[in-house]
Amino acid sequence: MKDYIESNKQRFLDELFEFLRIPSVSADSRFKGDMLKAAEYIKRRLLEAGLDSAQICPTEGHPIVYAEKITDLALPTILVYGHYDVQPADPLELWDTPPFEPTVKETPAHPQGAIFARGACDDKGQIYMHVKAIETMMANNTLCCNVKIMFEGEEEVGSEHLATFVKENREKLKADIILISDTSIIANDIPSVETGLRGLAYMEVEVTGPNRDLHSGVYGGAVANPVNVLSKMIASLHDAYGKVTVKGFYDKVKELTVEERDSLEAAPFDEEIYKKDLDVDAVSGEAGYTTRERASIRPTLDVNGIWGGYIGEGSKTVLPSKAFAKISMRLVPDQDWEEISDLFTEHFKAIAPPTVKVKVSRHHGGQPYVTPMDSIGYQAAYKAMEEAFGQKPVPTRGGGSIPIVALFEKELGLKSILFGFGLDSDALHSPNEHYGIFNFFKGIETIPLFYKHFNQLYNG
Amino acid sequence: MKDYIESNKQRFLDELFEFLRIPSVSADSRFKGDMLKAAEYIKRRLLEAGLDSAQICPTEGHPIVYAEKITDLALPTILVYGHYDVQPADPLELWDTPPFEPTVKETPAHPQGAIFARGACDDKGQIYMHVKAIETMMANNTLCCNVKIMFEGEEEVGSEHLATFVKENREKLKADIILISDTSIIANDIPSVETGLRGLAYMEVEVTGPNRDLHSGVYGGAVANPVNVLSKMIASLHDAYGKVTVKGFYDKVKELTVEERDSLEAAPFDEEIYKKDLDVDAVSGEAGYTTRERASIRPTLDVNGIWGGYIGEGSKTVLPSKAFAKISMRLVPDQDWEEISDLFTEHFKAIAPPTVKVKVSRHHGGQPYVTPMDSIGYQAAYKAMEEAFGQKPVPTRGGGSIPIVALFEKELGLKSILFGFGLDSDALHSPNEHYGIFNFFKGIETIPLFYKHFNQLYNG
Repeated sequence: MKDYIESNKQRFLDELFEFLRIPSVSADSRFKGDMLKAAEYIKRRLLEAGLDSAQICPTEGHPIVYAEKITDLALPTILVYGHYDVQPADPLELWDTPPFEPTVKETPAHPQGAIFARGACDDKGQIYMHVKAIETMMANNTLCCNVKIMFEGEEEVGSEHLATFVKENREKLKADIILISDTSIIANDIPSVETGLRGLAYMEVEVTGPNRDLHSGVYGGAVANPVNVLSKMIASLHDAYGKVTVKGFYDKVKELTVEERDSLEAAPFDEEIYKKDLDVDAVSGEAGYTTRERASIRPTLDVNGIWGGYIGEGSKTVLPSKAFAKISMRLVPDQDWEEISDLFTEHFKAIAPPTVKVKVSRHHGGQPYVTPMDSIGYQAAYKAMEEAFGQKPVPTRGGGSIPIVALFEKELGLKSILFGFGLDSDALHSPNEHYGIFNFFKGIETIPLFYKHFNQLYNG
Repeated sequence: MKDYIESNKQRFLDELFEFLRIPSVSADSRFKGDMLKAAEYIKRRLLEAGLDSAQICPTEGHPIVYAEKITDLALPTILVYGHYDVQPADPLELWDTPPFEPTVKETPAHPQGAIFARGACDDKGQIYMHVKAIETMMANNTLCCNVKIMFEGEEEVGSEHLATFVKENREKLKADIILISDTSIIANDIPSVETGLRGLAYMEVEVTGPNRDLHSGVYGGAVANPVNVLSKMIASLHDAYGKVTVKGFYDKVKELTVEERDSLEAAPFDEEIYKKDLDVDAVSGEAGYTTRERASIRPTLDVNGIWGGYIGEGSKTVLPSKAFAKISMRLVPDQDWEEISDLFTEHFKAIAPPTVKVKVSRHHGGQPYVTPMDSIGYQAAYKAMEEAFGQKPVPTRGGGSIPIVALFEKELGLKSILFGFGLDSDALHSPNEHYGIFNFFKGIETIPLFYKHFNQLYNG
């Protein structure tokens, strides 16, 4: 199979570049036509790869591309999920090369070159690995699992219509495992397989003091300033040990065993390099946990945005009427995002002084997720990585959230394997997003090994 | 004189309306032409009122309008200061009537009607009282003091070029007292004369965490979030008793005597009405002081603006690189605004945790100011108010700042009389600014009485 990949290398890249040139920005209705174009492009390539019944399934939003290859009902079935939509490219002026004209450049992390383009890593480059891996297996007659493909066009805008599609197509989507390449490995010489993801509860708060903006000279000192009050309330959301003070926040947090913590800590990590990369003199977080634990197995609370009063140039002596903040919490098993949203709302209202009025609303959320390390899906991924990279992969726990994974588990009863090949430094969602050429081909090479090991473990 | 005012009532109003229609917004360069138009308008009206040598004095910013009437060198000279520039009208959508089309409507505080327009009270309506009061005295041959007029166009943006003008024109501006109508009385049936103003130190802070915006899932919990940190720092700027914690902040604060505090508390004040007007359930401030004391004789610290992270619609899971705040302190005698600015800078840097970098810069400031109640200027104002309103005025201490007043004292050696006729509820700097028709004409009637009493006390 390696020969096949090697001899088709340039064509695989050319096809990916063609795919990346379609600006499939789901958030912006001006790109609606391009979204369809991207769906049609990937459908055509799936057919060419040898998959059957490739189809564009309309939704009330952007369409879902579905395809399958059922060779033998006795074989296990893999459902591949990914998304062909991308984040908006703004701010355009911060891109060194045009976001929809793929350009190859070397970077320190990618000495063999990386493809710079919006969606190169998240997720067009990663779903295209699956299309080419399946083509390779078909061409070499080594496809040893049935496969179903489901690529959606709304991952970057909340996957609203995918949920309906999944609920309405439970039979069609029947499988033994879900395989998703939308995450990262530690480094190109340090493979890793994620054992879980954090959940998310995203809130917005509004603090109202006086009923109108006041002159800070006339009223200052005598009337509560909602920005000062909001600051105090936010400050109180963490205690001196970096713990979140929301009542009941930790009640359902499942503590990891010493063995589990040790296995996560086995991954190489240099805190000095981490600090230097971020240009901070000190890290910060919950006492009693390491930096990596704080960013993966522990729940957090962060202000994602704050605003109030006069924020233009110069000065205005205003005592504002209102102050706002967007506050999100990353959750870990077994926290429930709806319950945490309620606990936050209750807590935030309870700590408001009588001088202000407080409104709390929810934006969205998602459940935390764990892939058991002893499941055959995780084991297959582990063995595939080990075989492809020539070394044991490191189990990691992702800090981000893919809310759809919890939905899959609930609606389809299936676990997902987070089988990504990107790097955290690939500038996802940022200007100059890129994806290593090494990573793209390593993915195409590793995916068939997953099929092989999954088949073996399934039958063993 | 009352007859003259009565018979010219409609003309006085028409002229003021014409003046208010000119959008003299000093902060916005798009209104530069209108600034000159407003200066020319007021110069023409000063000439018509009978003043001599009315002139537009160019500065490096907006011009200053000067005029004078020296009838007899043996008479005392009053220097009238005010400003023809106004605050920006934004947010426009919150105005019930167009900001530059004066509209008369009744309000609970102004049953005889109020003029709604940007600058109606601050300060075009109040300087126009002086123009019409002088016209009235000239027409009735009762002008018993020499008068000099200095109306600037940069009060709302820091009076930068007025300082130069004053320094370069010490001789021309020689006078015995400065008279300023840019403040308020307690109510239309409760006259008051301010005995002082608070000073101001206006700062801006920038807190930087990581060197770029981060994904809050990947880094959240492990890297200090500058918004959370800034909130904590702001929260710490007040202690549990509402005292400002900046080191050395209170060192030079002059405590008032019990008698002084009692005399200030003699003014009628209903805290229930105050809370109802602002729609707050509770007031708030420094322990041990009344609401009025907190807003006048005590120094304060307020956040005037805060921003950081994602503040658009919806949500973005960003751990921001930076957070900002505009923070101002109102000062009382004998705090020095430059010293306080330095103390704040030092303190704010000292409380920053090692996880962030902090920048502090000054916007502007001004010294607190006191008018001695036993001075002939204050006494003349007191007697004029008493005669016009038929009752003794209440001495008050203004919470706002007119930094130029301290400059006048330093450069010209002159005290200023704060002889304003607005109400605190007139929505200065806010949408729907207005000025009572009663207040406008009461000012025109009271100003000549100040001239009369000042002349008598000066000679007596």
